[in-house]
Formats: sequence, structure tokens, C-alpha cells
Amino acid sequence: MSEISSLGEFGLIDRLTENIQHVNPSTLRGVGDDAAVMHYEPHNDVLVTTDLLLENVHFDLTYVPLKHLGYKAAVVNFSDIYAMNGTPRQITVSLGISSRFTLEHVEELYAGIRLACEVYGVDLVGGDTSASHQGLVISITCIGEAPRDRIVYRDGAKPTDLICVSGDLGAAYMGLQLLEREKVASAGRKDFVPDFAGKEYLVERQLKPEARRDIIERLDKAGIKPTAMMDISDGLSSELIHICTQSKTGCRIYEDRIPIDYQTAVMAEELNMNLVTAALNGGEDYELLFTVPLTDHEKVLKVEGVHVIGYITEEKLGCAMITRDDAEITLKAQGWNPLRDEQK
Amino acid sequence: MSEISSLGEFGLIDRLTENIQHVNPSTLRGVGDDAAVMHYEPHNDVLVTTDLLLENVHFDLTYVPLKHLGYKAAVVNFSDIYAMNGTPRQITVSLGISSRFTLEHVEELYAGIRLACEVYGVDLVGGDTSASHQGLVISITCIGEAPRDRIVYRDGAKPTDLICVSGDLGAAYMGLQLLEREKVASAGRKDFVPDFAGKEYLVERQLKPEARRDIIERLDKAGIKPTAMMDISDGLSSELIHICTQSKTGCRIYEDRIPIDYQTAVMAEELNMNLVTAALNGGEDYELLFTVPLTDHEKVLKVEGVHVIGYITEEKLGCAMITRDDAEITLKAQGWNPLRDEQK
Repeated sequence: MSEISSLGEFGLIDRLTENIQHVNPSTLRGVGDDAAVMHYEPHNDVLVTTDLLLENVHFDLTYVPLKHLGYKAAVVNFSDIYAMNGTPRQITVSLGISSRFTLEHVEELYAGIRLACEVYGVDLVGGDTSASHQGLVISITCIGEAPRDRIVYRDGAKPTDLICVSGDLGAAYMGLQLLEREKVASAGRKDFVPDFAGKEYLVERQLKPEARRDIIERLDKAGIKPTAMMDISDGLSSELIHICTQSKTGCRIYEDRIPIDYQTAVMAEELNMNLVTAALNGGEDYELLFTVPLTDHEKVLKVEGVHVIGYITEEKLGCAMITRDDAEITLKAQGWNPLRDEQK
Repeated sequence: MSEISSLGEFGLIDRLTENIQHVNPSTLRGVGDDAAVMHYEPHNDVLVTTDLLLENVHFDLTYVPLKHLGYKAAVVNFSDIYAMNGTPRQITVSLGISSRFTLEHVEELYAGIRLACEVYGVDLVGGDTSASHQGLVISITCIGEAPRDRIVYRDGAKPTDLICVSGDLGAAYMGLQLLEREKVASAGRKDFVPDFAGKEYLVERQLKPEARRDIIERLDKAGIKPTAMMDISDGLSSELIHICTQSKTGCRIYEDRIPIDYQTAVMAEELNMNLVTAALNGGEDYELLFTVPLTDHEKVLKVEGVHVIGYITEEKLGCAMITRDDAEITLKAQGWNPLRDEQK
């Protein structure tokens, strides 16, 4: 095991960034100067997003492997760029590292970040590395690009637009419940082997989410440009309210159309939790939520992995879900929110 | 006093970013979507830099006012963009906020960030806000731009180039020593009034540094493009070694030419510290260190606030300082480095 303190900041950065290859022609200079240097095509706009992940707020190293954490920390940023209908190109990575980490730990974390960059064709171009007296801190900023007329904001939804989601919902949240349950069960027991049999999908959704580049590509191929879009990091309900508030619309979604995986349903039953609540309010799915004009109905039905779950209404009708027994329930933004007391 | 938890993340972001005005035409969309959107002039390259500041590693809230902290956190990023000979245009701000902070505290911090943006003409376009169980975390990313042929890297210094620094060195470090001394003296005493008389400059240099936009503008006006440049955040000695290593050169600087303020000298004497060591290795001056061709000697001498302190040599001669009594001392990168044990 190697002590980070023996390397110092610059030694550590050199070690972590050695052999970094750039794959994007927009990357002119990466790590090693006061700033990274990029150049984007004149017809493209530049997109910037950033995420801060703090130990014991956003992740628990008891059950999150460092390589997975690095992968996820990068991917959630890519997801934000795809949610603008853009392409992620570069990231900067800032780390605050507490003294209980060895060089090997940090290399594991970086291996995950670098793998995510490789898979999504993104260049690591800079960052900052520091000691932390307070546990692991990860701050990633992602820069992307898109032709101006392709960018999709949150505020473009119009009444009669169809509301679509990719993949399925609630699985990452159920994965978190499962991991927390096994953590409690394992407390103090050295021989404990967590039991994830038949629930591998939930664990994977929590620990190693993917950004839906594939959906963006399929929509483009199908000739569909969403009118509004965002990624689902805080729960469907909360995100849908964002789109409706910013678009000055209401919405109706149908309970029986919300895509939920079988493993998610089984787990909800095991935990005696309301399945639809988990799908509406469980965070970290990183699926795409978007609206398309009604005229794209036929086209969007053919796009693999996309589900039409409802439609946009006039603002005065509010945001509601139609239940299986035809009742209307007002949607609330109860998404995962570490700043609220009740969720601590 | 208002509880942040009653607002939640989105309420807090709304509150902090209300009435934000954008002054740069390159800013198309700021806070409020998955990513900020910018567009830069086709002939300009895009510069990106990022800094992570952690409580009790990079700042001590016992004596750092939150507004100053916010100002400094933004300015140190602007300084990195100026050090590329670029212009800062946008920042994103991510905050991890521990529960001992009230809304008013966070607004103070933000007031400092927004003031810095106003002074330097930079737009606040995004960020992330989260609870922290670990003290205050501030991660700022700055995006800037520059025409490609104006960008100055660290690796362009050539033998016979003159080595220049702006302003004076060591004052921020002495300010830190002073603040630490008064903190110790005040421990447990409620009626304690710190004594900064005659040392106001040192305190200001530590608490409210400025980025040297003025120097960049003066060099431009004087028709000088540095061959290499960086800002001095970790100490002159360490930064000079960076430039020489990356430029594959050596250097000679003269002890008696290192610009030091009178207050810095008085404070060093009071603390019985070596003044030149403080100027060489004390961090956080945020002055500019740059090299210019020998042919610009006349021109650079006329630039207000710039001092020629030595020259670049062939690599094999190494990096050294010529002392007042004509001895050669090898320069070492002993800059401020929170990842090294001995400085904790």
C-alpha cells in the first residue's frame, strides 16, 4: 500500500493522469496547465454541467466499490449532457481525499472514471486534488456540445405532447434499499455474505448506472426531436413537475403505463413498500424523461426502450397521475433530496 | 435565522440564483436546466479550470468571513484563466453545506461569489447544492475564452527569456500567519479584539486576493505576449520549477529582485521567519509569473506593477536563486501542499 502523502499533490496528479489519451478533436490541451483548452465547431453550442458527490451523503463506501463509484460519478454528468440532446466531450475531476485512502484506493476510483470516459468517448482534461479531513469528496464538471437547433430544454413542452420515459423506474432506489438492508444484516459479522440472488439488476442499477446515449441516438435516427427533456435523477414525479413548471403546463400520466422491472416489483413486495411510490419518487434511475409532439406518436412507439406514459395538458389542470381505478392523484415533488430534514 | 432544510435543494438554488443577470453574450442559458449553454466566437478557444476548497484544509471559518471566502473562491479560478492570457466568462458553483449553516450564511457566501462575478464580468451559470456531513465544501469551475494565438502555456519559455512577476510576494502567507496567531491568542477569550494595526495589507492579501486582470491588460497594451505564464498559488519557487520543467529549461533569479512589501518584511521579522523563504514558498499570492523574450526588455520595464527577477537558462543549469552575497541556491518545490504530511 502506498501513502499518498509521499507523492504530494503533483506526484499524485501525474500518477493518475499518466497515459491519458484524448479522443475528441475538440480537446487541444488537457491536464498540466492553469486551464484545459478546447475548441468547438462554430455551429455548436457548449454545454456545461457539474455534480458534487459527498461521502455518506451521496454514497456509502461500506458497500459501494470505488471503481463503481468513479464510473457512476462520471456517468451521471454525461447523463445531464445527453438530457440536453448533446454529446459529452470533456470532464474535469476534483477530489478531496481523506488520509485513510491509499494510492491504490484513489487509482481504483480513477480507473472507474477513466473506464466511463472510454465507454462514452469523453476526455479527462483537468481537475484538482486535495487532502480532505472529512471523507471523500468528488466534484466532476462535464463539458459537451450540440448544434444549437438540436438542444432540448426543459421548458418546451406543449399541451397534447406525449410524455415518454426510457427504460424502467424505481430499480436504483430498490437497489439502495437492498444494499442498506444487507449492510444492517452484516453489521459486526465477519463471515457475512450478502444475498443478492435474483436481484442482481437492482444492485447494478444502483451501483453502475448508464447514461442513455442509446436513446438519444435512436430518437435522432427516428427523426424525433423532443420538445422538452431531462434525466431522472430525483424521481419521475419531481422531474415531471420541473418540466411542467418551466413549460407552464400541466400533465396526466397513467399509473399502469409506468415501466417497472419485475425485480423492482418483487423487492417492493418483500419490503412492504408501495411500488408506484418507489417508481415515482425513487431517485438515481438516470433514465430520460421527455415530451414529443402528438404527431410523433407512431414514430415514438417504434423506438426501442421508450414508453409513452401520459400527455401534457394546459397549466390550470395541474400535474396528476390517473390510477388503475381511475382516480386522479396530484403529483408531488417528493424526490430524493439530501437537503431536507425528513430524509436524513 | 432560516433553516435551509425548510427550503430544500431547489428552493435554496432558486433563492441563491434569483435576479442573476448575465453580462456576457456568450452565455445563452444559465441555471435551471440539466446544463448551462454557451456559445463562443469561432476564432476563440475555450478554457476550463476548476478548484476545490474544503473547510479546515483550505480555509478556517474561525477567521475567514463567508463573503470573503466566496469572493476568493471565485477569484482564484479567474486567476487561472488570466494566467492562460484568457478572459473568464462563466462559473459553476457547487456547494456542500453542513447543517450548522443557516440560509443567511449561504447567502453571505453567495454574495461574495456574486460580487467577484460582478467585478470581473463573469456569469454564474450553474452548479449543484447538497447537504454535507463534513463541513463546507466549495467547488468552482470557470470557463473562459481566448483567441488561439493569444493563449500562453507554461511550456513556452526559452533560454535568455526574462522572468517577471507582478505585484509582491509572501504577503498572503504572512497574512495567514498573522490570522493564525490571533486565533490562538483569542482562544477562549470573548472580549478579544485582534490587532491588525499596520498589517492591514497582509490580512487583505490573505482574505481578499484579486486576480491580475490589470496586468494582462497592460501587457496586451504594451504589445507583449509572454512566452510562458502561470499564476502563483503554491509559491514562486514551485511555480518557477513548473515552468522550467515543462519548458525544458533552467533559470536564475536574483534574491534582491524578488518584490516584497514592507509589511511582509516587518511581519517576518516579528515572527522570526526567513523573509525570502516566505516569498519563495508562501502560497496564495495569485500574482502572475511569466517570461518574455529578451527583446521585450525595454517594453516590460515600463509596465506598471511588473518586476524582472531573473532569466531562463539552458535546462542543464538547473533552477537556482542568486543570493545577495552571490551564492547559488537550488530552488525547491516546497510550496504549500495540503497532501503532504509535513504541512498538516
